[in-house]
Amino acid sequence: MELRINKSYLSQAIQIVSRAVPTRTTMSILECILIDASGTEIRLIANDLELGIQTTVPGIIIERGIIAVDASIFMGIVRKLPDNDVTIVTEGEKITITCEKAKFTILGRDGADFTYLPQIEREDEIRISQFTMKDLINRTIFSISSNESNGMMTGELLEIRGDRLRMVALDGHRIAIRSVELLQSYPDRKVIVPGKTMQEISKILSGDTDRSLSLYFTDKHVLFAFDDTIVVSRLIEGEYYRVDRMLSSDFQTRVTVNRREFLSCIDRATLLVKEEDKKPVIILIGEDTMEMKINTTLGSMDEEIDIEKDGAEMNIGFNPKFLIDALRAIDQDEVTLYLVSPKAPCYIRDVEETYCYLILPVNFITID
Amino acid sequence: MELRINKSYLSQAIQIVSRAVPTRTTMSILECILIDASGTEIRLIANDLELGIQTTVPGIIIERGIIAVDASIFMGIVRKLPDNDVTIVTEGEKITITCEKAKFTILGRDGADFTYLPQIEREDEIRISQFTMKDLINRTIFSISSNESNGMMTGELLEIRGDRLRMVALDGHRIAIRSVELLQSYPDRKVIVPGKTMQEISKILSGDTDRSLSLYFTDKHVLFAFDDTIVVSRLIEGEYYRVDRMLSSDFQTRVTVNRREFLSCIDRATLLVKEEDKKPVIILIGEDTMEMKINTTLGSMDEEIDIEKDGAEMNIGFNPKFLIDALRAIDQDEVTLYLVSPKAPCYIRDVEETYCYLILPVNFITID
Repeated sequence: MELRINKSYLSQAIQIVSRAVPTRTTMSILECILIDASGTEIRLIANDLELGIQTTVPGIIIERGIIAVDASIFMGIVRKLPDNDVTIVTEGEKITITCEKAKFTILGRDGADFTYLPQIEREDEIRISQFTMKDLINRTIFSISSNESNGMMTGELLEIRGDRLRMVALDGHRIAIRSVELLQSYPDRKVIVPGKTMQEISKILSGDTDRSLSLYFTDKHVLFAFDDTIVVSRLIEGEYYRVDRMLSSDFQTRVTVNRREFLSCIDRATLLVKEEDKKPVIILIGEDTMEMKINTTLGSMDEEIDIEKDGAEMNIGFNPKFLIDALRAIDQDEVTLYLVSPKAPCYIRDVEETYCYLILPVNFITID
Repeated sequence: MELRINKSYLSQAIQIVSRAVPTRTTMSILECILIDASGTEIRLIANDLELGIQTTVPGIIIERGIIAVDASIFMGIVRKLPDNDVTIVTEGEKITITCEKAKFTILGRDGADFTYLPQIEREDEIRISQFTMKDLINRTIFSISSNESNGMMTGELLEIRGDRLRMVALDGHRIAIRSVELLQSYPDRKVIVPGKTMQEISKILSGDTDRSLSLYFTDKHVLFAFDDTIVVSRLIEGEYYRVDRMLSSDFQTRVTVNRREFLSCIDRATLLVKEEDKKPVIILIGEDTMEMKINTTLGSMDEEIDIEKDGAEMNIGFNPKFLIDALRAIDQDEVTLYLVSPKAPCYIRDVEETYCYLILPVNFITID
């Protein structure tokens, strides 16, 4: 094999596919990137068997071939090369990488050991802008469960109903929902995509509103195609939680508050919370103000902010992290909280239903 | 005690003194910052008994007093307060910190448990710009030994001879020397300052050429005074190595090379070096070019750069890290290497003797 590729294109392509290289594995072939120049294009592929990424990199194929190369060494070398054309030549499993006067020789592996991405039929395309997909992920992903034994909770629901795409993440204590309008209607569809896939996709996507992303589904896989890249991921099997049943539009108390002020206040409160103890922040909703209190072994904190309130006064406790995550995921200057009782979920949502963050309260016994 | 201090002044002052708060200690009082408002000024002090820092912060003393407060909690709280006046009130050991509508209550400690900085007579002042001191430290400190049992090697020599200030750091494998001219002559002086002190000082100094720093010495201590801050550090006792005896102006080979090119080349070579194996980079000095080679379990690398050479050709091996550190500490576009033999030290120095980096070569057996 002999290839000539511009350094910055190559470096970018390696960065994209390495997101599918597992950090810890007992199968050393999974730590490799496959360079496949057996056809008319140069393709880089990485595949951890759950998530696979393939990208095409512009360059010249002088002699066709296939080789697998350790991702971290390859990335390290290419990143530090001068900004010029890079030549990659293989001789058996020996790979020589040359750029200007620098020459590296490393050992590759037989491409035959490598597992290609599963073939997915590209039928029933769903189109969305890269910006929107990235945005939807970033504003919901924090609510998935990080505990790997939690099955479906470690994934995100991706649901198409007519011309709306909805993404849902929940971890048993909170739910994050974001919904957008699509350019056209599509057949209804509901899949659970692993959280890791969503996280990696959001890192690769450009966040450009003018560039689009195509989604394709099979029973077991989802394929994301954008720019010169495709990402294939297994789906999580099962029937997702019935989220709509958990939502309610009733409320006893409605509070509108400046988001930034609310956020800085909760943020200050967390200073006194050590990771091990799960102290709630207690919110006392009064007539025109809301008082926030926290009391831990390190000390106590207490702050008041102005609000607009409808309905009854209420005292309620929350895990401050959940409030912070939700408030950070919202852009608007003002947010509205809907509360039913100190033991029922609190909703932060907008009237247009583009977002809804549900947070379960924490029991607190006395307020001193 | 009752004080009113602007948040950003307070936050800055806490940041300065916390550099003397040890990260690990069994004496919990050392983890505290002392707020001393017993006189007409508000002073913050931290002292790990080796290194002590005291700074004055502008503010209003409504009621005099002294209290010690846990540095990390205090820093955390103040940093997250709104940008406005902060009121600190003590009632026994209870400290209340208020800013706008936020109120924190934490427990302080009796100031009497705290150890003040040692009193240093301010005689025989030596003056230097903050920029120069910061620069001297940053361009030498990497050569001290990080092994705490290495006594004097963990410190830097600070030597005044007439109107020259010289700083020297060495770790047994290399020496870094920087020298500057002072504005006037001073009596000769030689002290060894702990590396940690130098590191912390360089982080606090503004790097401003217009702001000055004063140095004072006693037999056991050095005092740095600048802006509203004083830093007092113990000195390392003993007679420093006779560095001048280790230097020589003889050479067999003199090589002048573009610093940036040389640096990127060595930097690329280190890619293939795992931390555990200490593979040297081998340099083959030819007529107009210098070839660099490295050969490790991960692969091999080989690159050539243009040089100007006087004297004999030579093959010599180095720990690449030492070359990188020295080359990064030099500003000039071109550097000159003076070599005697593959077993004798290599010098990188300028004609004016403002800098000299000595690096011991590494033995290498065969070059393949």
